[in-house]
Amino acid sequence: MSTIVTPAEAEAEIRAIMDARVGAVRAKDAAALVANHVPDIVCYDLLEPLQYRGVERVRQRAQQWFDGYDGPMGYEIVGLEVVAAFDVAFSYGLHHVTGTTKDGQKIDMHWRSTQVFQRLDGMWKIMHEHGSVPFDMKTRKASLDLKP
Amino acid sequence: MSTIVTPAEAEAEIRAIMDARVGAVRAKDAAALVANHVPDIVCYDLLEPLQYRGVERVRQRAQQWFDGYDGPMGYEIVGLEVVAAFDVAFSYGLHHVTGTTKDGQKIDMHWRSTQVFQRLDGMWKIMHEHGSVPFDMKTRKASLDLKP
Repeated sequence: MSTIVTPAEAEAEIRAIMDARVGAVRAKDAAALVANHVPDIVCYDLLEPLQYRGVERVRQRAQQWFDGYDGPMGYEIVGLEVVAAFDVAFSYGLHHVTGTTKDGQKIDMHWRSTQVFQRLDGMWKIMHEHGSVPFDMKTRKASLDLKP
Repeated sequence: MSTIVTPAEAEAEIRAIMDARVGAVRAKDAAALVANHVPDIVCYDLLEPLQYRGVERVRQRAQQWFDGYDGPMGYEIVGLEVVAAFDVAFSYGLHHVTGTTKDGQKIDMHWRSTQVFQRLDGMWKIMHEHGSVPFDMKTRKASLDLKP
């Protein structure tokens, strides 16, 4: 069964999912973070490898990420753009995390994140996700300190 | 004026655009490369900065990229996935470039690339593009030598 939604309704639904995701990071809740991923999501992640497939691996990586922080994580998405049609949608924006890692490092990092969604049985699901930082051509270092 | 296309027709149209893009790189034709970009495209590129906006900057970067190569560039997209609805679509895959730079460096590099499209006045246009390589957590170096 599928329900027709307007583009505005679809956008509101996608924004609600992305808001829930921000809440999931702030709560360090890895299961909630992947609640809207399809089982065989193809992920282009910030860290190696080049790509991987499967929601369980995304969940494990999120858990490791959360476990690396001592105390609260600040999280927001800056300038989230959402475009939604009948049953395909995408979003992109700059994700911003702050906090202190367990080895005492202060983190204040922005990266780029793109999600693509399909509406399956009336529910929006993330089919593919691409997160990254750019790199510096001269040093070949990943650029972890850029600000928007 | 807008024409209704089926998902299969839409996918074929997107694949044709991505095929043309491969041809544009092989021909080192920067104008052809951006023929399907909207003027205010938001680009998350492999190199700094974090983001930029505007097709002219994408074209200039492509020209610099092409100018850096001595002789032919090999180019292909490995495992291109396309999902298209009525007027929104996305594609992702691993882009693979080979060749020799003008300073004599042999290049054989894969990166991740995600495009999102809207169908505007009957034509598919790239609204947003995200290209990247991951990085190595220990060295913080960009991973330029990964193979799929």
